[in-house]
Amino acid sequence: MKDLLNILVEKYRPLTLNGRVANYIPELSKMNPASLAIVVSDVASNTFSAGDYSMRFTLQSASKPFALALALMDNGADVVFDRIGMEPTGDSFNSLMKLETFTSLKPVNPLVNAGAIATTSLINGGSPEEKLDRLVALIRQLAPGCNIGFNRDVYLSEKQTGDRNRAIAYFLRDIKAISGAVEENLDLYFRQCSIEVDCITLATMAKTIAMDCDDANHPIPRQYRRIIRTFMFTCGMYNASGEFAINVGFPAKSGVSGAILGVVPKRYGLGVFGPALDHKGNSVAGVAMLAELSRELDLYLL
Amino acid sequence: MKDLLNILVEKYRPLTLNGRVANYIPELSKMNPASLAIVVSDVASNTFSAGDYSMRFTLQSASKPFALALALMDNGADVVFDRIGMEPTGDSFNSLMKLETFTSLKPVNPLVNAGAIATTSLINGGSPEEKLDRLVALIRQLAPGCNIGFNRDVYLSEKQTGDRNRAIAYFLRDIKAISGAVEENLDLYFRQCSIEVDCITLATMAKTIAMDCDDANHPIPRQYRRIIRTFMFTCGMYNASGEFAINVGFPAKSGVSGAILGVVPKRYGLGVFGPALDHKGNSVAGVAMLAELSRELDLYLL
Amino acid sequence: MKDLLNILVEKYRPLTLNGRVANYIPELSKMNPASLAIVVSDVASNTFSAGDYSMRFTLQSASKPFALALALMDNGADVVFDRIGMEPTGDSFNSLMKLETFTSLKPVNPLVNAGAIATTSLINGGSPEEKLDRLVALIRQLAPGCNIGFNRDVYLSEKQTGDRNRAIAYFLRDIKAISGAVEENLDLYFRQCSIEVDCITLATMAKTIAMDCDDANHPIPRQYRRIIRTFMFTCGMYNASGEFAINVGFPAKSGVSGAILGVVPKRYGLGVFGPALDHKGNSVAGVAMLAELSRELDLYLL
Amino acid sequence: MKDLLNILVEKYRPLTLNGRVANYIPELSKMNPASLAIVVSDVASNTFSAGDYSMRFTLQSASKPFALALALMDNGADVVFDRIGMEPTGDSFNSLMKLETFTSLKPVNPLVNAGAIATTSLINGGSPEEKLDRLVALIRQLAPGCNIGFNRDVYLSEKQTGDRNRAIAYFLRDIKAISGAVEENLDLYFRQCSIEVDCITLATMAKTIAMDCDDANHPIPRQYRRIIRTFMFTCGMYNASGEFAINVGFPAKSGVSGAILGVVPKRYGLGVFGPALDHKGNSVAGVAMLAELSRELDLYLL
Repeated sequence: MKDLLNILVEKYRPLTLNGRVANYIPELSKMNPASLAIVVSDVASNTFSAGDYSMRFTLQSASKPFALALALMDNGADVVFDRIGMEPTGDSFNSLMKLETFTSLKPVNPLVNAGAIATTSLINGGSPEEKLDRLVALIRQLAPGCNIGFNRDVYLSEKQTGDRNRAIAYFLRDIKAISGAVEENLDLYFRQCSIEVDCITLATMAKTIAMDCDDANHPIPRQYRRIIRTFMFTCGMYNASGEFAINVGFPAKSGVSGAILGVVPKRYGLGVFGPALDHKGNSVAGVAMLAELSRELDLYLL
Repeated sequence: MKDLLNILVEKYRPLTLNGRVANYIPELSKMNPASLAIVVSDVASNTFSAGDYSMRFTLQSASKPFALALALMDNGADVVFDRIGMEPTGDSFNSLMKLETFTSLKPVNPLVNAGAIATTSLINGGSPEEKLDRLVALIRQLAPGCNIGFNRDVYLSEKQTGDRNRAIAYFLRDIKAISGAVEENLDLYFRQCSIEVDCITLATMAKTIAMDCDDANHPIPRQYRRIIRTFMFTCGMYNASGEFAINVGFPAKSGVSGAILGVVPKRYGLGVFGPALDHKGNSVAGVAMLAELSRELDLYLL
Repeated sequence: MKDLLNILVEKYRPLTLNGRVANYIPELSKMNPASLAIVVSDVASNTFSAGDYSMRFTLQSASKPFALALALMDNGADVVFDRIGMEPTGDSFNSLMKLETFTSLKPVNPLVNAGAIATTSLINGGSPEEKLDRLVALIRQLAPGCNIGFNRDVYLSEKQTGDRNRAIAYFLRDIKAISGAVEENLDLYFRQCSIEVDCITLATMAKTIAMDCDDANHPIPRQYRRIIRTFMFTCGMYNASGEFAINVGFPAKSGVSGAILGVVPKRYGLGVFGPALDHKGNSVAGVAMLAELSRELDLYLL
Repeated sequence: MKDLLNILVEKYRPLTLNGRVANYIPELSKMNPASLAIVVSDVASNTFSAGDYSMRFTLQSASKPFALALALMDNGADVVFDRIGMEPTGDSFNSLMKLETFTSLKPVNPLVNAGAIATTSLINGGSPEEKLDRLVALIRQLAPGCNIGFNRDVYLSEKQTGDRNRAIAYFLRDIKAISGAVEENLDLYFRQCSIEVDCITLATMAKTIAMDCDDANHPIPRQYRRIIRTFMFTCGMYNASGEFAINVGFPAKSGVSGAILGVVPKRYGLGVFGPALDHKGNSVAGVAMLAELSRELDLYLL
C-alpha cells in the first residue's frame, strides 16, 4: 500500500501544474501549489502515508460532514431535513439560484454552501466559540491523539472576504431557513472552515466515519454515519460529484484548501491534500490519485 | 422474504390513494391507481413475488439504464461522456434550463430526458426498428425466457403528445449534442419507453445488472454495469434521487408508468410496479415499500 | 380635470378589494387598504386632487428615481453605468438570479432592488444621515414648499426585516458592484424608502421631472431627467413594466406603499396612492385609474 | 438631413470592423460586413438616403412588428395577449429559460423568438403561403410602390438550421401557447424572416408605422400602431433594448441581417442596414449612427 501511494504522488505531482491555488481567500492563496499528499488509514488502524503528509491545512468544506453529524446528533434527522433538502444540484457550490427556484423554500442539500450554513446554524451551544468547541471535540473523538488546530489567519481572512456567504445567509434567514444572528452563524461557519489538520489526521477522521459498527461508544451513531456518507457520495465534490462517483466511486468531500476526505465504508479512511485546484474547486492531482487508487484496489461501492 | 413482501404490499397499498396516475400520456392515464406489486430476484435466481406481479406495464424511464448500456457498448465510455454529462441536477426530469446554463454544451446526465434522448441517439442500427430490436435483444439477454413485449398504444400516445421531448431534442441538435434526424431519434426513444414487461421480468433484468462477476458471457461488461448502477444511484429517481439515496440507499430507476427498477449489487434485483405517482413522478407506494425493505434487510450500500 | 379624477377614484375604489396591503414590512401592513388618491400637477403648476390626497405614505421604491438622479449628478452617467446595467428584466424586483446569469457582473438596472442598492451606494456624503439629507434636499427642490417627512417606524421596520436586501447587498459587494460598509449602504437605502410625502407632493415632484426645459436652475440637468424617465418607462413598474407601458404608456414608478409616481413629459406630474397591491407589488386601483386617465387624455407617448 | 446622413455613414463605417456578420444562418454569412446604409423618410414623404441604400437584405426579426400587427388585426388584442406576455426580459432572444420560470405559461413578449413564433401562429390563412401573402400584402400597403421580395436561399437556409426555433415551437405547443402543425408555423416564421427589402423600403414601412393619424384608410389601426411602437421601445433591440432606449430613445427593431427599423412617432421612419453585428445581434455601426442622429435631432421621446 505504501509503495502504491508513493507511486501515485510521484506520478500525479506534475498534474498540480494544471491547477491553481484558491485565490478568493487571501490567506489560502499563500499555499504552495506543488504540495501533494495522500494517507490511507484502514479500519484496523494501520496508516500508510506518502508525499507531504505532515503539512497542515484548513478543512474548509471538508468540515461540512462533521458539522452535519453534530447537527443530526443535536436535533435528529427530522428537524434537520425539515430545514435542508437532500438533492444534489448541478450548480456551483456558492450558487443562490436554487434558493429562488427550488420547489421548497430551503437549501438543496447540506454540502453546498447554502445548506452547510443552515446545517451549522443547527449546532447547539451558547456562543460561536462554544459551538466550535463542541465541533472540535467531536473531531478529536474521531481522530483521538491527533493534533486538531485552528488557523486564525485563515479564519480572519474568510470572515473578511465572505460576502457571498453573507448573501447566502441573509437569503436563508429571509426564507426562514435559518434564524438568529446571521453574523454569529457565519462566524461559526468561518471557524469550522478554519480547523487545521494534516493528512494523517484527515485519514483517521475518515476512517472513523468509514466504520459500520453499531457500537454505542462510536462518537457518531451508525445511522448518521450512513447519511453523511450518502451525501458525500451524491454531493461531496461540488458540481463534479457525479463525475467523481463514476470515476472514483466512493464517498468523498473536498475543500478549497485542497483537502479531500475519502471514505470507503468498512475498509478505509483517506486523507488527501493538494492545493492546486481545478476550475470546480477540487484538488486536481488529488482527484487523479483517488481515481487510480480506486481502479487499483477496486474501491467502487456500486 | 415472500412474507415480508406480502406485508409490504398490504401495508402500503392504501398509500396509493395519495398518488395520481400519470396523465400527460393519455394511454398511461388508463392504469388502475390501486395496483401494487413487488418482486425480488436474488443472484442465485430465486424469485419472490407479492401483489399484482403479473400485471404488465411499460418501462418508460426505467428503460434508460438499458439504452445507456447499449450506447456504452456501441461507442465506449469516452464517446458517450463527450456528448453527455455525469452530474445530477435538482431540476425536474423534463427541464431544459441546464441546457442553457450548464458549463458545457451537453445534457447534464443520461437519466434526465435530455441526456436520455442523447444516449438513445448513440445506439447503433440502420433504423429505429433495428435499434429497438437490438435494445429488446439486450433486455431479453438480461431476462432470458421472460416475456418482453411492446405496447403500441402507449407508443403512439407518447409520440403524439411528446412535444416537450421534441423541444429537448431540437435544442440538443442545435447545440450539436445529437445529430441525424430528430424524429427518428425520438421515435426510438418513444419506442424504448413503450417496451412492456411485468414485475418478475423487471426484477430479473435488475438482478442481472446487480451481478458483479467479470464473466465474458454477461450481456453487459462489468465496468458498464458499474457505471449504470452509479447513475441510478445519483440520478435515477428524478429530482428525488438524493432523498431516495438517503432513505433507501441503493441504485434505482423509476418510470412514470409506476415502474421502479432496483439494484442491490451482488445481491438482489428488484421490480416494483405502482402507477399512483407522487408529484415528482415516482411511485408513491413503491418508494415507501423500498424504504421499509431496505431498513428490514439493511440494503444500504454506503 | 378635477371631475375626471373624482370619477376615477369613485369608479376604482371598489377594486382595492382585489389587492392586499404589503405585509412583509410590518409597519406597512397597518395601512388602510381602501385608501385611494390621485393628484395631477401640470407644468403650469395647476394642481387637481381627488380622494385621500392628504394621507401621508412612504415613498418606498418610488424613491429610486431620485436616488438615481443624485447618483448621476454626483458621478456622471459613465461611472453609474459602469456599475449598473440598463436592461429591463422579467424577474421579480427582489430577485438575485440575474446577478448570477447576467452577462456582466453588475445589477441589471437601477430600479430593481439590486440596482437601486448599487445606485444608492454612489450618492456622495460622509454618513448615511448626510447622504439622506442631500437626497431630501433634492426632493425639496423638486417640490418646494411641500412637507417632506420621514417615517421612523417604517425605517426601523424595514431595517429589521430587510434580509433579502442584505442578501442582495452582500452579493453586490462580492461581485464588486458596490464597495464600503454594507450596513451603511443599506441604512441609507432603508431611509430613502421611508421618506414620507402626500399625493400632492408626489405629483409636484413628478411634474418637475416632467419638465423638459434646459434651464440651468432646474435641480436635475435635462439629460438626467430624460434618463430617469426612460428607466421609469422600461423598468418602473416591477415585472409589470411592459404591461404598464402598453396599457398606460408613460413613465411611472411604483412603491410597495401603494405609491405611483407618473411623469408625462412636458405636460403632467402624477401622484397616486392606493396601498392595496396586486401580486406584483403595484397599486391595483392606482394602475387602473392611470390606464383610464391615459385613454381619456391620450397620454401615450409612443 | 442628407448631409448629416452622409457624415454618419462616413464616420461610423470603420466601426463595422468591430462587428461580425451573423454566421448561424449560412446564407447570411455571405453578406459584406463593410456595408452600411441609412435612410430617413419623414411623414411628409420626403426621403433622404446615404451609404449602400440600394443593397437588398432580409428582414429577419425586423419582420416581427408586422407579424404582430397582422395578428392583432386578425384576433384583437385580448386574444393575442392571452397567449403572449408583455414583459421585456434581460435574456437573449433565443432563450427558453423564461418558458420554464415565467409566472404564466406563455412567452414573455412578442419580439423575442418564442413570442414571435406564437405571434406568427395567430395569423389567419389556409396555408403558410397564403399567410405569408397576407403579411407581404400588409407590408406592400405600408410601402406602396416599393419592391418587396423574398430570398428563397435565406429561407431554405433558415429552415435547415432552425433547430433552436424548433425547440422553442415544440415547447410552446407543449404548454399550449401555440396549436396546430409546428413545422407549418415555423415555415411561415422562416418565410417572414426572409422577406427582402432595401433601406428605402424599410424606412418607408417605418414611416407608415410612425404616423399617428386616426385615418380609417391606414393599413394598421392607430391603437395597434401604438402597441407595436411600445413593444419596439421596450423589447425591440434584443437584450440591449434598455441601453438603446437610454442612448437612442425611440422605438426600433433590429434583425440579424443587420437591419434596423426605427420609428419616431409623428415624424420619421428610419431604415438602417449594417450586417456587422455586435455580440447581442444588433448592427454595431447602425446603433452608433442612430445614437448620434438622435443627439443631433433631439429624437428622444421620453
